[in-house]
Amino acid sequence: MANNTITAPRGFVAAGVICGIKKSGKADLALLVCPAGAKVAAVFTTNKIVSAAVHVSKKHVKSPKIWAVVVNSGNANTCTGQAGMKNAITMCAETAKRIEVDPHNVLVASTGIIGEQLPIKKITAGVSKAAAKLSASSKAGLDFAKAIMTTDTRSKQAVRRLGISGKKITIAGAVKGAGMIAPNMATTLCFITTDVAISKALLGKALKTAIGNSLNKLTVDGHQSTNDTAIILASGLAGNRPIVSQCPRYRKFTLALADLCDDLVRQMALDAEGATRMFKVVVKGAATKADAARASRAIADYPLVKCAVNGGDPNWGRIICAVGSAGIKLNPDKLSCKLGDITVFKNGAPKKFDAKRAGKIVSQTEHTITVDLGVGKQSDFCYGCDLSAEYVTINADYHT
Amino acid sequence: MANNTITAPRGFVAAGVICGIKKSGKADLALLVCPAGAKVAAVFTTNKIVSAAVHVSKKHVKSPKIWAVVVNSGNANTCTGQAGMKNAITMCAETAKRIEVDPHNVLVASTGIIGEQLPIKKITAGVSKAAAKLSASSKAGLDFAKAIMTTDTRSKQAVRRLGISGKKITIAGAVKGAGMIAPNMATTLCFITTDVAISKALLGKALKTAIGNSLNKLTVDGHQSTNDTAIILASGLAGNRPIVSQCPRYRKFTLALADLCDDLVRQMALDAEGATRMFKVVVKGAATKADAARASRAIADYPLVKCAVNGGDPNWGRIICAVGSAGIKLNPDKLSCKLGDITVFKNGAPKKFDAKRAGKIVSQTEHTITVDLGVGKQSDFCYGCDLSAEYVTINADYHT
Repeated sequence: MANNTITAPRGFVAAGVICGIKKSGKADLALLVCPAGAKVAAVFTTNKIVSAAVHVSKKHVKSPKIWAVVVNSGNANTCTGQAGMKNAITMCAETAKRIEVDPHNVLVASTGIIGEQLPIKKITAGVSKAAAKLSASSKAGLDFAKAIMTTDTRSKQAVRRLGISGKKITIAGAVKGAGMIAPNMATTLCFITTDVAISKALLGKALKTAIGNSLNKLTVDGHQSTNDTAIILASGLAGNRPIVSQCPRYRKFTLALADLCDDLVRQMALDAEGATRMFKVVVKGAATKADAARASRAIADYPLVKCAVNGGDPNWGRIICAVGSAGIKLNPDKLSCKLGDITVFKNGAPKKFDAKRAGKIVSQTEHTITVDLGVGKQSDFCYGCDLSAEYVTINADYHT
Repeated sequence: MANNTITAPRGFVAAGVICGIKKSGKADLALLVCPAGAKVAAVFTTNKIVSAAVHVSKKHVKSPKIWAVVVNSGNANTCTGQAGMKNAITMCAETAKRIEVDPHNVLVASTGIIGEQLPIKKITAGVSKAAAKLSASSKAGLDFAKAIMTTDTRSKQAVRRLGISGKKITIAGAVKGAGMIAPNMATTLCFITTDVAISKALLGKALKTAIGNSLNKLTVDGHQSTNDTAIILASGLAGNRPIVSQCPRYRKFTLALADLCDDLVRQMALDAEGATRMFKVVVKGAATKADAARASRAIADYPLVKCAVNGGDPNWGRIICAVGSAGIKLNPDKLSCKLGDITVFKNGAPKKFDAKRAGKIVSQTEHTITVDLGVGKQSDFCYGCDLSAEYVTINADYHT
């Protein structure tokens, strides 16, 4: 069977183990290693309060090459002061020691509860355990994907294979999603591996573009976490002629990367906390692209729209209400709205429509809401998911 | 027993009847009349898509005096095009006919589902029925308060009594709340009556100030509706020396009005859709008042904070996460947070605290969250409520 995990590209080994941070006893320490060293690029949360892990990784990512990424789940290492910084550095140092590289050649990521110190002894023991289990098997890749989960109900992975200058290239990704997801630089934890040979600058550019049109377009609850990190590692072992300019080969790579990220973001939307279905919001006829982005996000974030989708209810009035309060330019007399292919509101007036068929459309696993603001030619989109009673249950008692 | 409804001030009669808009068969048409004519002031939603009722009332409120306010619940008369405008005008005209005044001396308000045409025949029949029942009794005032409800589980009313230049002044209010509530000009439907003698200009100023510090400070789900309207009518029948300047008598009146509005907003917060408790967010140490307002609202709107309050969980990390993503100026090394009187986070580091006592604090009917941004001297506040599974249940099936 094909390896469809982050160990699929040549040059990567991984592991996921139980180190004892999570009370549930589930896997909570993950290790990804590129023994030959990898080109790296990353995007981080723009939240002003960030995890100590983000502080450290932001520094280390400047290194020409990275050999490993160490991740813990169950604790965000955020709002933890100087002690937290020391622990993040220790995580890198312990990992570096196991694989014999410099600590600044290791990246670190954390996810989980905010405001508690890491059980650092458990983690360093976990790093040893994980280092001893490193493997290129698909089981090892799956173990990694499972060990980064928090309230996710399933691991999320994707692989794309393509040919570049006669060589087989593989790109693979693992993400953790669930809550605290909003479009604003990176989203949650996302690790991508590839064996393509590419310059560090273009790897960064490709990642930024791909994330911008995928993970940054998803809003689950309108907030980005303090720990959001997306990292791509490129081993360069595919043997292709290195990509050093924005040539057709670069474009081919970015298309595959974008497609991979779109796959991952859909998996995240459908496994968002308590989500039962997702939707895409397309806003067109906007004066500016920023207006279109703002309006689409206002709709996808609006709890009443999310509840209506949960109820399979074609309550389009809430969509219009969200647009009206988004603070963007619109023409009330030209405003129109579609649910799937059904026009429910046109030029500022309601249209008679088949409510039963509309109900079926919004009850699908995924449907598209289209709004025309009637003032210009710009458009943008975003992804959202429904809001269920389970979201509340999950989040009312996460701490205790 | 004292009359504690909007018919308490001298010069007002009211009624609330069933006209048949709501499928539930509950009261859905309300009428408030000041037979001698009243000075009037109002604030309306700033949503760019507004109800036909808002369009009409915005025009009529410019009249020197208003004789009546007609309100229907169960249908918002929004996104209803030209037919909707005609219906809103008809509601005023029918009411005007019954009490023999000009249609432009009548205000109209609607609340309920967006995008459906009003059953105007049922409404005109309802206006006749209500006009025949107009009374200054407290029962009539209560009927009014009940007939404006949508998903509210109880009517919301408040009364304040004070003396001005040796005369007894009464101020009374009725509001409908529940969902689609956010701080941005007016909130939901709010009707206030008073018998004070005051100039139209000062009545407007007093209303704007009172609403700004009460109803505009409450966020239930971060969105303001297309129909938000707050109206104050002053009959002038108390016999006080008319208030025509910002004198101490004006100040006394505004304090009482502000207190009344604060009472109403707390009732709204605690009866927000599915809410079980409310909280106040105070943000201080901000560089600007706007930053303080934005940060307090970001906290109160954050679903994960709202869920934590629902679970009685002192999960302060989510508060800091919300502050960090609010886009305001802060100093991570000076940032502090208190739950009630317990400091949980100080100068960027967590503080050991009694989790059991903190859990008790956030489980109260109302508690205060205080955040110090550590960069300036400005402060502001807002009110929020918890997010419960019931909110979702209520809003998943509201339409059908």
